[in-house]
Amino acid sequence: MISMAFLFDLFSVLGTVAFALSAVLAARGRQVDLFTILVLATVTAVGGGTIRDTLLDVPIFWAEDTSYLWIAGVSAMLGFFFYTLLDRRYLNMLYQAVDSVAIALFGVLGTTKAWELGFGLPLGPVILGVITATGGGVVRDVLLQRPSMLLGKELYIVPVALGCTLHAGFLALAPQHAELGALLAIALVLVLRYGTLRRHWSVPQWGQLKLK
Amino acid sequence: MISMAFLFDLFSVLGTVAFALSAVLAARGRQVDLFTILVLATVTAVGGGTIRDTLLDVPIFWAEDTSYLWIAGVSAMLGFFFYTLLDRRYLNMLYQAVDSVAIALFGVLGTTKAWELGFGLPLGPVILGVITATGGGVVRDVLLQRPSMLLGKELYIVPVALGCTLHAGFLALAPQHAELGALLAIALVLVLRYGTLRRHWSVPQWGQLKLK
Amino acid sequence: MISMAFLFDLFSVLGTVAFALSAVLAARGRQVDLFTILVLATVTAVGGGTIRDTLLDVPIFWAEDTSYLWIAGVSAMLGFFFYTLLDRRYLNMLYQAVDSVAIALFGVLGTTKAWELGFGLPLGPVILGVITATGGGVVRDVLLQRPSMLLGKELYIVPVALGCTLHAGFLALAPQHAELGALLAIALVLVLRYGTLRRHWSVPQWGQLKLK
Repeated sequence: MISMAFLFDLFSVLGTVAFALSAVLAARGRQVDLFTILVLATVTAVGGGTIRDTLLDVPIFWAEDTSYLWIAGVSAMLGFFFYTLLDRRYLNMLYQAVDSVAIALFGVLGTTKAWELGFGLPLGPVILGVITATGGGVVRDVLLQRPSMLLGKELYIVPVALGCTLHAGFLALAPQHAELGALLAIALVLVLRYGTLRRHWSVPQWGQLKLK
Repeated sequence: MISMAFLFDLFSVLGTVAFALSAVLAARGRQVDLFTILVLATVTAVGGGTIRDTLLDVPIFWAEDTSYLWIAGVSAMLGFFFYTLLDRRYLNMLYQAVDSVAIALFGVLGTTKAWELGFGLPLGPVILGVITATGGGVVRDVLLQRPSMLLGKELYIVPVALGCTLHAGFLALAPQHAELGALLAIALVLVLRYGTLRRHWSVPQWGQLKLK
Repeated sequence: MISMAFLFDLFSVLGTVAFALSAVLAARGRQVDLFTILVLATVTAVGGGTIRDTLLDVPIFWAEDTSYLWIAGVSAMLGFFFYTLLDRRYLNMLYQAVDSVAIALFGVLGTTKAWELGFGLPLGPVILGVITATGGGVVRDVLLQRPSMLLGKELYIVPVALGCTLHAGFLALAPQHAELGALLAIALVLVLRYGTLRRHWSVPQWGQLKLK
């Protein structure tokens, strides 16, 4: 039987790798060196979780287990050196796929951790899930002076927020099926991101008032 | 008799509503959807208090009482949907009035909370008051890639800093009149902001060296 | 015998003065008033240490000892009023020298503090050293909407990171020579920064792939 603890660890590692690689891809078109990439990858990979742990007032996860730092650093270095091997045409698609997987995994992780600590139930865990998923990327975009994905036209927050809400619903109403809830939430985020990127799903008309 | 605790709660709610509405107005002229507005309104409304509570190392106020999140969210939603009813000519004036009320209320709240915890007296509470009042708006402006009001030519920090200093003075020298100090401090911030916005009060000449 | 505690205090004060002055110089060419300068100098001088103390979950150093705030404020004020006396030709050089001294001192301080608390050894103290040294400047640059030095072509993170690594090496392998390690680390940062600024040392070719 796959335990929740194992899934938690696996998702953390996969999400860390995905976010570190997304930082390499986010810097494309810029003259940045390896060391800047290492900083940006670390910020992207552990930034959201760092904000989460600070708000929860628990020890920062990467100080408890420094392997996350090594995973982010090695992933960024490999991404940097093998970057030139990639086919340019698919880079943006790859970036979005990798980033979507990372936000799905980190959203579920953040919601779980905040729920277990009883942080502002039931809305707090959803917010911390969204922060865990998007916080590192937002800080990275601010450092790169790049428009944050929060402000883009495509759906970015909405899929994560809905996924975290679904997972929080399972934790509240059917905690014995928490693993199932986590997997369904990840699937929901990925489907919504896929629909956004490939099928141009967007916010319905009533939510799109242009503020003049 | 109106108690300090009642004023504290009332100011928190009013300031939250005002900041959430200010976020809707800050996004005017941008193509942002309802969900982005919800994020920006939440950041503006609870961001400064979140930084304050993190520095004070006390539980984050909106996790202790999630009603602040609901108030911010509902205010932002109402502001979003009734936005089109507003007369465009007065929007900037309205934005500044609402924002001024919010920074006055949150400045006094932050100063009070830090003072009661003995955080770096006497300068610490003034700084945390200013952070509580302006931190959420600064983070919002950074996310919107909008020049922060900290850097504008009009007086923005100075009124809040003077109001928080006045309130800290009452807490230090006449704690039995703390309620009076809070009200006078709020009045001082509002008068100085009004003078800035309507009478073009500004920093005196000796404080305006152009750094070439 | 010069004690570590004395060096720690001396470095803190010198670094605070240097960072406050660097904020005045960072704002050159902008129309900013004295009060904005005070905010920027305070952010630059205590910002990195504030992030460090938040991550370490220890009381914020400037609340424990408010003299850092006064030192930063008085330094910024003197820098502001005597600015016009400075020879314009050397301003950029002066800014870089002052800033280099500050990042060297704060890097060593941050590494020491995190090491003594056993925060994520051995990588954690290096990262917190870099954050202590560069965090305040990064936040200042974000507030000024100025490209962060993290992203510039000159070496900025690398000298600090190498200095913090050297100091962490001494703390791990020869803690009885920690004072020597601190001084060597500071010297290393200054030499590397000097080489960058005067001799145009830069990241080696293999670390400079242009990401297209």
